[in-house]
Amino acid sequence: MGVLRTALLMGIFLWVSLLANGLNLWPMPASVGYGSGILYLSNNFQLRTEGSKYSDDSRILSDAFLRMVDLVRVAHVIDGIVPSSGVLDGLHVRIFSEDDKLNFGTDESYKLSIPASGKETYAQIEAQTVYGALHALETFSQLCYFNFTSKIIELHSAPWKIIDQPRFPYRGLMIDTSRHYLPLAAIKKVIDTMSYVKLNVLHWHIVDEDSFPLEMPSYPNLWNGAYSYSERYTTADALEIVLYAQRRGINVLAEIDVPGHARSWGLGYPSLWPSFDCREPLDVSNEFTFQVLDGILSDFSKVFKFKFVHLGGDEVNTSCWTATPHIKNWLKKKGLNESDAYRYFVLRAQKIASSHGYEFINWEETFNDFGKQLNPKTVVHNWLGRGVAEKVVDAGLRCIVSNQDKWYLDHLDSTWESFYLNEPLENISKPEQQKLVLGGEVCMWGETVDASDIEQTIWPRAAAAAERLWTPTWKLATDPKLVAPRLAHFRCLLNKRGVAAAPLFAPGRGTPPFTGSCIQQ
Amino acid sequence: MGVLRTALLMGIFLWVSLLANGLNLWPMPASVGYGSGILYLSNNFQLRTEGSKYSDDSRILSDAFLRMVDLVRVAHVIDGIVPSSGVLDGLHVRIFSEDDKLNFGTDESYKLSIPASGKETYAQIEAQTVYGALHALETFSQLCYFNFTSKIIELHSAPWKIIDQPRFPYRGLMIDTSRHYLPLAAIKKVIDTMSYVKLNVLHWHIVDEDSFPLEMPSYPNLWNGAYSYSERYTTADALEIVLYAQRRGINVLAEIDVPGHARSWGLGYPSLWPSFDCREPLDVSNEFTFQVLDGILSDFSKVFKFKFVHLGGDEVNTSCWTATPHIKNWLKKKGLNESDAYRYFVLRAQKIASSHGYEFINWEETFNDFGKQLNPKTVVHNWLGRGVAEKVVDAGLRCIVSNQDKWYLDHLDSTWESFYLNEPLENISKPEQQKLVLGGEVCMWGETVDASDIEQTIWPRAAAAAERLWTPTWKLATDPKLVAPRLAHFRCLLNKRGVAAAPLFAPGRGTPPFTGSCIQQ
Repeated sequence: MGVLRTALLMGIFLWVSLLANGLNLWPMPASVGYGSGILYLSNNFQLRTEGSKYSDDSRILSDAFLRMVDLVRVAHVIDGIVPSSGVLDGLHVRIFSEDDKLNFGTDESYKLSIPASGKETYAQIEAQTVYGALHALETFSQLCYFNFTSKIIELHSAPWKIIDQPRFPYRGLMIDTSRHYLPLAAIKKVIDTMSYVKLNVLHWHIVDEDSFPLEMPSYPNLWNGAYSYSERYTTADALEIVLYAQRRGINVLAEIDVPGHARSWGLGYPSLWPSFDCREPLDVSNEFTFQVLDGILSDFSKVFKFKFVHLGGDEVNTSCWTATPHIKNWLKKKGLNESDAYRYFVLRAQKIASSHGYEFINWEETFNDFGKQLNPKTVVHNWLGRGVAEKVVDAGLRCIVSNQDKWYLDHLDSTWESFYLNEPLENISKPEQQKLVLGGEVCMWGETVDASDIEQTIWPRAAAAAERLWTPTWKLATDPKLVAPRLAHFRCLLNKRGVAAAPLFAPGRGTPPFTGSCIQQ
Repeated sequence: MGVLRTALLMGIFLWVSLLANGLNLWPMPASVGYGSGILYLSNNFQLRTEGSKYSDDSRILSDAFLRMVDLVRVAHVIDGIVPSSGVLDGLHVRIFSEDDKLNFGTDESYKLSIPASGKETYAQIEAQTVYGALHALETFSQLCYFNFTSKIIELHSAPWKIIDQPRFPYRGLMIDTSRHYLPLAAIKKVIDTMSYVKLNVLHWHIVDEDSFPLEMPSYPNLWNGAYSYSERYTTADALEIVLYAQRRGINVLAEIDVPGHARSWGLGYPSLWPSFDCREPLDVSNEFTFQVLDGILSDFSKVFKFKFVHLGGDEVNTSCWTATPHIKNWLKKKGLNESDAYRYFVLRAQKIASSHGYEFINWEETFNDFGKQLNPKTVVHNWLGRGVAEKVVDAGLRCIVSNQDKWYLDHLDSTWESFYLNEPLENISKPEQQKLVLGGEVCMWGETVDASDIEQTIWPRAAAAAERLWTPTWKLATDPKLVAPRLAHFRCLLNKRGVAAAPLFAPGRGTPPFTGSCIQQ
């Protein structure tokens, strides 16, 4: 370590990086203006809400404010003396909607104005909904720095004027609790961190062939498909996750993947298998299959209030259907081939979901195989590759982009740069078609991920995608090198907040290759 | 997944594992008796302290009780109805010492008695000190299970009678904040988890050649050796860590490693380097070197109240001394060769530490090179290999065992089994010599470890060593296979508590190799 480098880093590092990169916010807001003043955070930082139509009876705002203050103070003991002038006493939050329902399309915009030194003593937040205000709190927290000389929290470059809103209404991250069980603590930590990067949909791939961890009151034996006695979620646990997420502005999209990826269902109800020797897809010929699906979606509707449910539909290998005599006979009687039967299953599942008030999302195979027969309200979830979204919106359907070559977090060779550069609107130029792309989602499949490695596999790569989904196109860097210092800064911020975000300059889930500073790894 | 296996796992798994392994406590207490009753934890679980001499003015006990209740409830929503009989209403804790000072040798013993169903409604804890009582709380928490049918917390196999105390008074874990900075949140999480496995010394290797992250009021420029502006600890941060640890029964052993491993000091005070071209060991010929060391140890003594300080002394390559003219001249004038000068440095550092009220620990090279000249109060810290402790105690000195082949956590090929089997008293049979082995320590050197991977690199392997250090020899398994299910259970418990403990059946820091249940990986 050279003396020169150290001298550079010490004291002036902060300013150098501010000057070099504009500012250290992640994701970058739509519009940012700032000055050159310094403010000092009061040790008794307050929340004011006069003029707000939102009552905060549920304490979503005031709890988020307390969490934000904790985050600002998490890295160091704040025991310096705050000067008598230039002090910021708190935040004045005005929210124009009384409603605190969170769902697809909820307004997430906000304005954050921080005064210049010596003027007003409160920063101003304005938002249509409390969820916009939560984003403003997160942005505010990222403007705060600990000063190692004065031992207080400072806010540089005041005054600030930030006007912000998301580019896409759907900004998702998928977790998979079937391949490995994820304890509540791990899921909550993912949700916390999603809120730091302004992602707003936790796609919960609850069940798959490997295990069925969630209690289903309508068909309680489904729970027998759990890995073990303790690797299970009660209905109340699921509701706890939904409410925990909602209080952080995050919707929970529940998935029940049918008819493939459902082998674990048969551990509780073996008649759902085509046979003991051939266990998936679910038996399409058995009315009981659809009764169980109806029960599951009925149970879902009491817990998962998001507008959408995910019905899966991917990777359906129908060979068990034709290999099983009673199903083969049923197909013959109905005059269906395997492909017809797959379509029949998916469309019937969609009808059941509709009957429980859901709109639905299906993986792209359903579109690729029988797109024209899909319910026009279907949202097609791309995963196989690029170039699908343009076909989907051409067909007039809505789309979510998760092309696996770039946005699958279990692809450890996919770098943060490729997460950053993946553009959901590639080759889609007509505004009315662009609107059909609801957004995108990064997927954390669970084959090699459990509570021990999920954080460093997700972060910071998912943060890179989060900026792609939040920030206006014209503000996104075409060369990721330009945002690397800002993302490195943010990765270190996550570490300070207790999130095990991995080094940038390593493959996914990479460990530090050698000694060194957080901001250079 | 077979139906048979699932049937086995579901419902009866808990009992099978209890029957197979005795019980699922980690580390195993010295004496455990239990029955076959079931108790139900009250939803209003209380702490009583009548008859306790300890006042708990500092709330060490009551805060620990609240944390324990949170841990018991962390994994699931507890919303079932507690039966009217067989309810455990709380813990009655009696502590016989008023004193809550924590230091080397503090009594950590405890007795925990849990009544049979239908008798008294409080479990009883007796301990000499509040720190023994904290261990009892942890043991109690590990006896609690969530019942997925009743949705309440149960305590099986009542009545319980547990009498427990540690085998060794020093049970350490080392962290290294020089190779990578560790944010406060990461250090606190390590401390939390240490308390779960009853380790009691956090050895903080604060400074090394790579960076100097800690504020030193006596010589403030030392802080210039930090990696960056933000990768630093204030004095108040260090005190926060000490107090946080103390409230969990954990001492903090501070290390300042001299005269080698100190290159970063010179970034603030270049005259501490032999020369700009040859930067370590510290300049032995310069009185300023010892003034700075005196300042550091003076600053230490205001923050680190543990009886011991660690003075390092390992891997001293003296070639810079002989290659630097002014030091070469000094050696000549003093009539010292390089090896004499190394000894001179170490012994002078010991005297300075003594003058600040410390006893001291040195890495084993000091013993290997000039053991007979060492202050007889020196504690020798073994690391190079096995067989050192027997020589140290033969010489009448005290020893801490950390042989790198088994107890270095950065050796990723060292399995949990080898951590478990490493015996500090190997070849030491005389009781008076055994007493000189204060205990052992696992070391988490930081070359490839930062906030993103420290937890899964430490756990569960450090837990395996913790049982070796806590549990009486005769209760330790000679074949690790016998404790593997119990450790696997504990690893999953850590995951539920939010600790990223890695799978057992992988190398250190290994990720799950494939889909599966936590308890089988």
